[in-house]
Amino acid sequence: MMDEAVHCPKRQPTLRLAPMPGNENMFGDIFGGWVMSNVDIAGGIEAMRHARGRVATVAVNSFQFHQPISSGDVVSFYTEVVHMGRTSITVQVQVFAERRPQKPIVVKVTEAILTYVALDKEGQKRTLPPAIWPELNDADAPPEP
Amino acid sequence: MMDEAVHCPKRQPTLRLAPMPGNENMFGDIFGGWVMSNVDIAGGIEAMRHARGRVATVAVNSFQFHQPISSGDVVSFYTEVVHMGRTSITVQVQVFAERRPQKPIVVKVTEAILTYVALDKEGQKRTLPPAIWPELNDADAPPEP
Amino acid sequence: MMDEAVHCPKRQPTLRLAPMPGNENMFGDIFGGWVMSNVDIAGGIEAMRHARGRVATVAVNSFQFHQPISSGDVVSFYTEVVHMGRTSITVQVQVFAERRPQKPIVVKVTEAILTYVALDKEGQKRTLPPAIWPELNDADAPPEP
Amino acid sequence: MMDEAVHCPKRQPTLRLAPMPGNENMFGDIFGGWVMSNVDIAGGIEAMRHARGRVATVAVNSFQFHQPISSGDVVSFYTEVVHMGRTSITVQVQVFAERRPQKPIVVKVTEAILTYVALDKEGQKRTLPPAIWPELNDADAPPEP
Amino acid sequence: MMDEAVHCPKRQPTLRLAPMPGNENMFGDIFGGWVMSNVDIAGGIEAMRHARGRVATVAVNSFQFHQPISSGDVVSFYTEVVHMGRTSITVQVQVFAERRPQKPIVVKVTEAILTYVALDKEGQKRTLPPAIWPELNDADAPPEP
Amino acid sequence: MMDEAVHCPKRQPTLRLAPMPGNENMFGDIFGGWVMSNVDIAGGIEAMRHARGRVATVAVNSFQFHQPISSGDVVSFYTEVVHMGRTSITVQVQVFAERRPQKPIVVKVTEAILTYVALDKEGQKRTLPPAIWPELNDADAPPEP
Repeated sequence: MMDEAVHCPKRQPTLRLAPMPGNENMFGDIFGGWVMSNVDIAGGIEAMRHARGRVATVAVNSFQFHQPISSGDVVSFYTEVVHMGRTSITVQVQVFAERRPQKPIVVKVTEAILTYVALDKEGQKRTLPPAIWPELNDADAPPEP
Repeated sequence: MMDEAVHCPKRQPTLRLAPMPGNENMFGDIFGGWVMSNVDIAGGIEAMRHARGRVATVAVNSFQFHQPISSGDVVSFYTEVVHMGRTSITVQVQVFAERRPQKPIVVKVTEAILTYVALDKEGQKRTLPPAIWPELNDADAPPEP
Repeated sequence: MMDEAVHCPKRQPTLRLAPMPGNENMFGDIFGGWVMSNVDIAGGIEAMRHARGRVATVAVNSFQFHQPISSGDVVSFYTEVVHMGRTSITVQVQVFAERRPQKPIVVKVTEAILTYVALDKEGQKRTLPPAIWPELNDADAPPEP
Repeated sequence: MMDEAVHCPKRQPTLRLAPMPGNENMFGDIFGGWVMSNVDIAGGIEAMRHARGRVATVAVNSFQFHQPISSGDVVSFYTEVVHMGRTSITVQVQVFAERRPQKPIVVKVTEAILTYVALDKEGQKRTLPPAIWPELNDADAPPEP
Repeated sequence: MMDEAVHCPKRQPTLRLAPMPGNENMFGDIFGGWVMSNVDIAGGIEAMRHARGRVATVAVNSFQFHQPISSGDVVSFYTEVVHMGRTSITVQVQVFAERRPQKPIVVKVTEAILTYVALDKEGQKRTLPPAIWPELNDADAPPEP
Repeated sequence: MMDEAVHCPKRQPTLRLAPMPGNENMFGDIFGGWVMSNVDIAGGIEAMRHARGRVATVAVNSFQFHQPISSGDVVSFYTEVVHMGRTSITVQVQVFAERRPQKPIVVKVTEAILTYVALDKEGQKRTLPPAIWPELNDADAPPEP
């Protein structure tokens, strides 16, 4: 597995994290579960924005690990809704790592598709609100072309 | 989502954990990423036993969340190899929670299928060793019928 | 201290955990407090099953560390009630580590005896319920001979 | 302290995090040390990019907490170099929280100025490399106007 | 940066901690944010004693890192009120590390000044109570000469 | 269990900690394993000072929990050597909590006796060095009577 250098998407990440040595597995890479946890959180934030409230993860549809992550990497999670049903939202999450501060490169480490369902306060499924666009917060929208 | 009572598989779990309040999300359920992390670890232990050494997760093929988990549940992860390739091992992980010490019931909370690849010390793919069975440790084998 | 190979008990563990490098002390072994914490949790689960509700630890009667634990070990906690008083339950906890995926062996790492007291919702001592056996959940019982 | 709604800066955050209930203090707000830790990490990432290698924090020059942070907020850390000396880099960190998925608003929660010093592999001070601009990675630069 | 040996203050520390390898950054030193977090907690304990209730950090006025901290050090936080306003308390925190059990020395690692504000139950500023001295608990006062 | 107010010992604590809500069990008390972990660390620091190097815990001889600990308590661990053998050191650890900043009281929460063994760099038992007293660092010695 070689590090193929790419560019991050030209939009805002949903999460951007700096994993620590305490997140390493016994082979010195960042533990795969750390990545899975944060992919789930990032996808959930995207889903909550569209659901305007509580959601729960119901399925991981696919999840590929392309590259290991190391301590010292800056790891960005980009999310995008790929399908909205009556009560569920399917989100794609792409994860990029910026490496080596001496001479930074960016590699794509993970991509995943997860489905969330909107819940009411009692934890029961609820119908999604009508999509009202664009985003309220300009800074979270992609830069204008 | 109602709690349908089931029985745990009549064999040994690969992991059995007691999540703590510090693992809760802001809705009071155990955070989904906690489950994903531990599914990854459980599947990895199963894969390492067959690979007789280091493995890395390459993909989550499917992952369903059937029920939320709560603090106080005892959560068991059962693993089974469903496919072995030349360098990769695909593992099914089923997760059950035992609830309510006053009157315990068991519910199935999650099931997932993940693929791992065997790595050598330099982190390069290696061919899997021939399968030598049965397990060395009887206590980890299912009880005889 | 040599690693004397043994077999795990032929019954279900109360907890089975995979400690991570983040649980190591500065000598590269798993931190003793990690073991003590999880012995306390395992004993507490056993006590709660019999108390059918909340318990608190009142004493550690004995606790021996036979072997260090390492990252990569799979660590199993076996519990057994050794005494029941009017309000208190004394539990033995035995801890085994499965090591070295290349050629697995099992070693006994720790054994301990702890006493728990049953508490009501206000945190006051309460009388234990009559013991109603066998266990509701067959899968937690030892396999039939 | 009222929540004055603002906009996030129209550039890329250095970190963007989702604090969890496990990061709360006993009053239900996110623990101040969580914020301080991550301000330090964010400023350190900015400093490492310019130092092209290891840095250490030498001083916090100022740090204001304007608003508490809650579980469920998405918290963004924006960094900017405000001074470069021969061996030291001073960084401003501004922290914004996006709140309430039902009707999101953004509030400025913290701002701080920290000084870092460039270190060599032995942990001794080293002279900073000449500033070579612009950033290698376009995606981390602010969108063109 | 050499380790200049000093003596700890001849009074009681507000906190005394033993950082673990899981608190290290990727250069093997204890992560700066660990120190900042605990300075904030130590200063907050001092402020709460004088405020006789809830406080929140409003500012870090200064913060110097003199020496890195290592796993195995015992780290003591000494606090002293340096100013009391109508609703705010300013606290100096000095941090010392005891190193090398083979031949212990003590070095000063950090000093900081932070300002806290007293809050009521609704999180609104409140006037500080009149200072009533000496401390109720003799053991927290410096030993008599 | 009522809170009997006592005074802390008139000497220096080996550890003094402020447990956080993330350390609570599901009944809102600080998790018993947190206390056990830190008793083990405190006793180990005392043992390392006398062993002038690495030690490992071999046994908990006794451990009583007198009172629960809550978030917001300041918890002090006092240690004392009660026996030194040729390779082993037995330490008593007493734990006190200072409660309720509105009107502080101190209660004794735990006491324990643990045995440690001195190890060399290879992890083998070693003979203890001759006791050379008094302590090098006056501030860690009890105040003169």
